[in-house]
Amino acid sequence: MSVVKGNAIVGQSGGPTTVINQSLVGVIEAIAGVPEIGHLFGARHGVKGILGEQFVDLKGISKDTLSAVANTPSAALGSVRKKPTREECLQMFEVMKRHDVRYFFYIGGNDSAETANIVNTMAQEADYELRCFHVPKTIDNDLKVTDHCPGFGSAAKFVASAVRGDDLDNRSLPGIKIDVVMGRHAGFLTAAAALARVRDDDGPHLIYLPERPVTREQIRDDVAAVYQRLGRCLAVVSEGVVDAASPNGQPLGESIKHEIAHLIELADKGGAGVPQEAFNVVRLIGGVECDAHGNIQLSGSGVLGDWLAGYIKKELGGKLRVRADTFGYLQRSFMGFVSEIDAHEGRMVGRKAVQFALGSDSDGSVVMIRQPGCDYSIEYSRTCLANVAKETKSLSDACIAPSGHDVTQAFLDYARPLVGPLAPAGWLV
Amino acid sequence: MSVVKGNAIVGQSGGPTTVINQSLVGVIEAIAGVPEIGHLFGARHGVKGILGEQFVDLKGISKDTLSAVANTPSAALGSVRKKPTREECLQMFEVMKRHDVRYFFYIGGNDSAETANIVNTMAQEADYELRCFHVPKTIDNDLKVTDHCPGFGSAAKFVASAVRGDDLDNRSLPGIKIDVVMGRHAGFLTAAAALARVRDDDGPHLIYLPERPVTREQIRDDVAAVYQRLGRCLAVVSEGVVDAASPNGQPLGESIKHEIAHLIELADKGGAGVPQEAFNVVRLIGGVECDAHGNIQLSGSGVLGDWLAGYIKKELGGKLRVRADTFGYLQRSFMGFVSEIDAHEGRMVGRKAVQFALGSDSDGSVVMIRQPGCDYSIEYSRTCLANVAKETKSLSDACIAPSGHDVTQAFLDYARPLVGPLAPAGWLV
Repeated sequence: MSVVKGNAIVGQSGGPTTVINQSLVGVIEAIAGVPEIGHLFGARHGVKGILGEQFVDLKGISKDTLSAVANTPSAALGSVRKKPTREECLQMFEVMKRHDVRYFFYIGGNDSAETANIVNTMAQEADYELRCFHVPKTIDNDLKVTDHCPGFGSAAKFVASAVRGDDLDNRSLPGIKIDVVMGRHAGFLTAAAALARVRDDDGPHLIYLPERPVTREQIRDDVAAVYQRLGRCLAVVSEGVVDAASPNGQPLGESIKHEIAHLIELADKGGAGVPQEAFNVVRLIGGVECDAHGNIQLSGSGVLGDWLAGYIKKELGGKLRVRADTFGYLQRSFMGFVSEIDAHEGRMVGRKAVQFALGSDSDGSVVMIRQPGCDYSIEYSRTCLANVAKETKSLSDACIAPSGHDVTQAFLDYARPLVGPLAPAGWLV
Repeated sequence: MSVVKGNAIVGQSGGPTTVINQSLVGVIEAIAGVPEIGHLFGARHGVKGILGEQFVDLKGISKDTLSAVANTPSAALGSVRKKPTREECLQMFEVMKRHDVRYFFYIGGNDSAETANIVNTMAQEADYELRCFHVPKTIDNDLKVTDHCPGFGSAAKFVASAVRGDDLDNRSLPGIKIDVVMGRHAGFLTAAAALARVRDDDGPHLIYLPERPVTREQIRDDVAAVYQRLGRCLAVVSEGVVDAASPNGQPLGESIKHEIAHLIELADKGGAGVPQEAFNVVRLIGGVECDAHGNIQLSGSGVLGDWLAGYIKKELGGKLRVRADTFGYLQRSFMGFVSEIDAHEGRMVGRKAVQFALGSDSDGSVVMIRQPGCDYSIEYSRTCLANVAKETKSLSDACIAPSGHDVTQAFLDYARPLVGPLAPAGWLV
């Protein structure tokens, strides 16, 4: 089997991470030394750039520039939230044929794997030799097959450091604090807050994950019990935590937004005595959006946290200090605070995608396989695109404590090497 | 003049910072070598610990422990939001006399300086020799006399790094982004977001400060103009930005909360057709609190950001991506990300307070005086407590651009040395 001659495209997709450019640079570096690949086209904003033929020439870029780009958060080529239709995949395939593209590297989550998979199938059907590779990235850590995803370790380091600092703050000025963490369906990032703990009574004292539905009353009672015991409480809540009281298993944040929507609906229908304009403030705060994939966007909105803080304050008595922070985009974009191992692995999955594409005649997604033994080590392998496309994974039962609002030692052992050491803390009392 | 023999108290007050423990350790270190000071009592939770005589013995602590504590965010002795009454100051003074306390170091903002000032006056009136010193800290950077305050540089570094990362994120997935930064009255921390810029079209593109009242319509128009020009916009808004349409000059966040309160009031009065329970969700989200000093608490609540995002989205057309993040407590507590110069100066003001207290016969607050010349350098001095107590300062006109929604080069020159270098960024396009 010989290396196919032709050109290559690389693109980035989905929510950026702090190490997605490591993967891009990994692809660029690995291709630089391959004479059979003439051009490496960087697609601006992922599939959008392929459809619009907006390309950046990525061969011959200096080592210094590549090194700076690798260490820069966000997608250097631009990203996109677009999931192409079949028709658009066909158009992309036509563009690739026209530019003699024989290699397609798409850095992103499971939707990106699906895009690569559709294009791959089209190429096979047309008997056009095209190597489609998905390069994994996501702070949610929810891709199948791989042990973990580049992007997660750095986001987890941010969350754990934020929660460690916030817990110290909460010790200084005791009260009830709620931190809302990203993750619509998978609780990995929220669970990583547990890495913040050093001493027995350190927070987070409660961790609410999308994998364990909970009622608002249960959260209130859990918080009250911790407050009773410690005189303070730090609870970490996934933005995707599921409302156990909802018949269709919707997130609590959505239940709250539906309550807002319900109020506005009632107001629209009648509400004599309350002028319609008075409701505008609520309309604006409660805005609910859907993304192109049909997912309801809750991410980063402060409504879940603010509501929870207001609810707990009202239920537990008005004099308590109750506050919420929603970590938002900082989790995926904060500058200058990556996990070293995550940055390294981000680079490696880019390089490996090229190696696998050159060395075999099939499509694939790069997977990381944790090696048995005491020391953390990873072997890189490939799996079929179909195994990673569409579906995602959640935290396994072995990672979640029986209480449902904490993680297990197994999760800590899993996550700690991905995050690396946190800054140490010292105490006087 | 000889050093007065006796004991010392040190306490921490107000919102913690990431370097307030540097100042505490500075005090502890400087006192360790003073034989005339027998005990150094660490007051738990500031004035609360003095009133309740909850003390920690701070002499003889190992260097390693002190070093770890110095590098730990938050108040290691615990903090307090309490502003003591005159009566309580008298009680504190009685406690000090009973414990033969001759030195009182209080680390905090201007309210802490006022507390120290009241106690100092009482001691003078009673002809009791007591050296009261205020050690400055505040992320708001709003203390009078001093060039700047320990705590600001690290918070500013956090904000600038967060905004730099967020701006890169916004380049990747263009849209309108609003970041809400702490600072009720002074815009220093919000202004520090400007340090994030490297290239001409980098964000933040708009900076709204408490010092320049603005209407919601003006924000909308400014954002629309930037979006028109760049296809994206990153605006940074102080939580204390003043609503120019409000007759009493209240913050915009408060105007929004008053709109919520107004809706609920109307609902309470009538609202036939809309059941009262339907309004509960709004009651919880819009919760408005006052702190012990009578300030309305807006800090960290997501309502201002969420409302602004909803407002801009509605006004500029429903298809735009508009999102808000509120940075919240992370600005003052994030672990492992301090400004080096800020950490150093935090330590120094603690040490200097002790030196000044031992070397003179008056009260004081430590001030930092920036030396003229090209290289950044600071001389430490003292001023009377009365000069720092009660009143605060704001950004000077020279720091604010004529547009009212940006800073000047003078501000950048002022702030850059306090923050230190940010992580460099690299670009492909």
